[in-house]
Amino acid sequence: MPTRLSGVLAPVVTPFKRDLSPDAARYVGHCKWLLANGCRGLAVFGTNSEANSLSVDERMTLLETLVQEGVPAEKLMPGTGTCALTDSVRLTAHAVSLGCGGVLMLPPFYYKGVSDDGLFRSFAEVIERVADSRLQLYLYHIPPVSQVPITLGLIERLLARYPGTVAGVKDSSGDWSNTKAMLDAFAKSGFDVFAGSEVFLLQNMRHGGKGCITATGNINPAAINRLFERWQAPEADALQNDITATRNVLQKYPMMAALKAVIAHWGRDPEWVTVRPPLVELAPEQTNSLVAELGARNFDMPGLGPTLAAALA
Amino acid sequence: MPTRLSGVLAPVVTPFKRDLSPDAARYVGHCKWLLANGCRGLAVFGTNSEANSLSVDERMTLLETLVQEGVPAEKLMPGTGTCALTDSVRLTAHAVSLGCGGVLMLPPFYYKGVSDDGLFRSFAEVIERVADSRLQLYLYHIPPVSQVPITLGLIERLLARYPGTVAGVKDSSGDWSNTKAMLDAFAKSGFDVFAGSEVFLLQNMRHGGKGCITATGNINPAAINRLFERWQAPEADALQNDITATRNVLQKYPMMAALKAVIAHWGRDPEWVTVRPPLVELAPEQTNSLVAELGARNFDMPGLGPTLAAALA
Repeated sequence: MPTRLSGVLAPVVTPFKRDLSPDAARYVGHCKWLLANGCRGLAVFGTNSEANSLSVDERMTLLETLVQEGVPAEKLMPGTGTCALTDSVRLTAHAVSLGCGGVLMLPPFYYKGVSDDGLFRSFAEVIERVADSRLQLYLYHIPPVSQVPITLGLIERLLARYPGTVAGVKDSSGDWSNTKAMLDAFAKSGFDVFAGSEVFLLQNMRHGGKGCITATGNINPAAINRLFERWQAPEADALQNDITATRNVLQKYPMMAALKAVIAHWGRDPEWVTVRPPLVELAPEQTNSLVAELGARNFDMPGLGPTLAAALA
Repeated sequence: MPTRLSGVLAPVVTPFKRDLSPDAARYVGHCKWLLANGCRGLAVFGTNSEANSLSVDERMTLLETLVQEGVPAEKLMPGTGTCALTDSVRLTAHAVSLGCGGVLMLPPFYYKGVSDDGLFRSFAEVIERVADSRLQLYLYHIPPVSQVPITLGLIERLLARYPGTVAGVKDSSGDWSNTKAMLDAFAKSGFDVFAGSEVFLLQNMRHGGKGCITATGNINPAAINRLFERWQAPEADALQNDITATRNVLQKYPMMAALKAVIAHWGRDPEWVTVRPPLVELAPEQTNSLVAELGARNFDMPGLGPTLAAALA
């Protein structure tokens, strides 16, 4: 079995052109910047990627472009969970065929109040239909958005039935006690728990977790990776406090529009601000205060402009 | 402009084969039975159709099959609202090109807490990209499931910008005061309000509504249509009480699995029970009690077996 993904992963924001089509050149540029600046993996097509605003074909084309342009497939953990069984199978099989290090799978999220039996059957159908021992499946627990939770009981059943395939979880519940319960129950079974925010990175590492998959990994990967590398060092708590403070600035704003505004500003590339409906861009006054607050923290994204310019050339 | 849809519409349940692929023959048969037994239109690909468990291509293929098999396109109001702008555009343009009487459009429903500005932009982008004056767009308000509401303010903006295209709403809030507010605000502007359940059919008609689009239209269309036709007659309240009582039986069970169990039983066609994950079939004891309760009400689906058998021949 290849080495599992660990460390800081960014749910890579997806740039759009003014006509709202995906901007492949900027996308490749940003992915390469992230890998050069602290991300050990890329959870492309996550919530903060506006992945659910993309069609299946749009996602597949972008993923193929990344690999063709030299982004190592083993560092990719694309989101492949959709409402429709057939779409989830298609995206997952495609990711595995490209050699992706894993997939991050939402439960089907349209129907609410569904049973663990139904969710087990859903994940099981995908695994059985993909039928590829290379598949490393990470469950995506994000009840504030999906409204469909991944319970401990469901994880237990999936791990028992598909050991070696069910590889871990991203816990975006925002509830440390839930992450802790997942760690306590499953970390020793080789089930890799990623916190859904760097706010919980140090706690997660201290209890046997593997890292974090975090929105702000898109803009602050070096500092977050520094904590990942030094979580056992004396300065770990200070490093945690620093990245938490930066996160707290971002959380005052709609996250996806804010991330894009930050990339547009520090990358000197105004096109980056575009989001797909139903999201909206930050208002100018929001952008100004966000930039001012980050600037006051000496925030920077070194190399962002030149790297992107090179990728776009 | 052609006559607008009105009366009782069923969000047609989608039959699946044992391998979970859509069963086109049973689908056509059920659609024809519905139109012969009280439905004046078919809201295919609604919530109760498990439409969000189907891929875009699966939906398009099924819709083409219906039209090819002689279901009048002008009676069809397919669901075309998805999370992804590009998918919603593709499904809507396809429905219009086939001559469908309307489309029933969910808002993009993955991201929660989105603004009316973002939702306006989402619907507007679909309308602008489809760019076809034949489009009759019905908004689908179902906050218990989508978690993303269609507010009165959003309707007002869409109606002002796209009069003649924004044709109405299905209100599945389950809150009569909301349906009443929509009727009071917009019914006189030619905005057609459909109740999302027959429980509100009589009230809806008395306040200027156009009918209902209801799950139980799949199994009880004749009785519901009788009230639609006689809502001004002296027996209207008695007819309402009767269909409400039948609805109340169904609502004790998971609706989609229950509808399929009823069709399987009264159509003498056990294959019908299959649902796609994340849904699960009724347990045998649930089916038994459901059938017994409906039987005690002298419930029947006349002609269901033979019609289906003919369609399948």
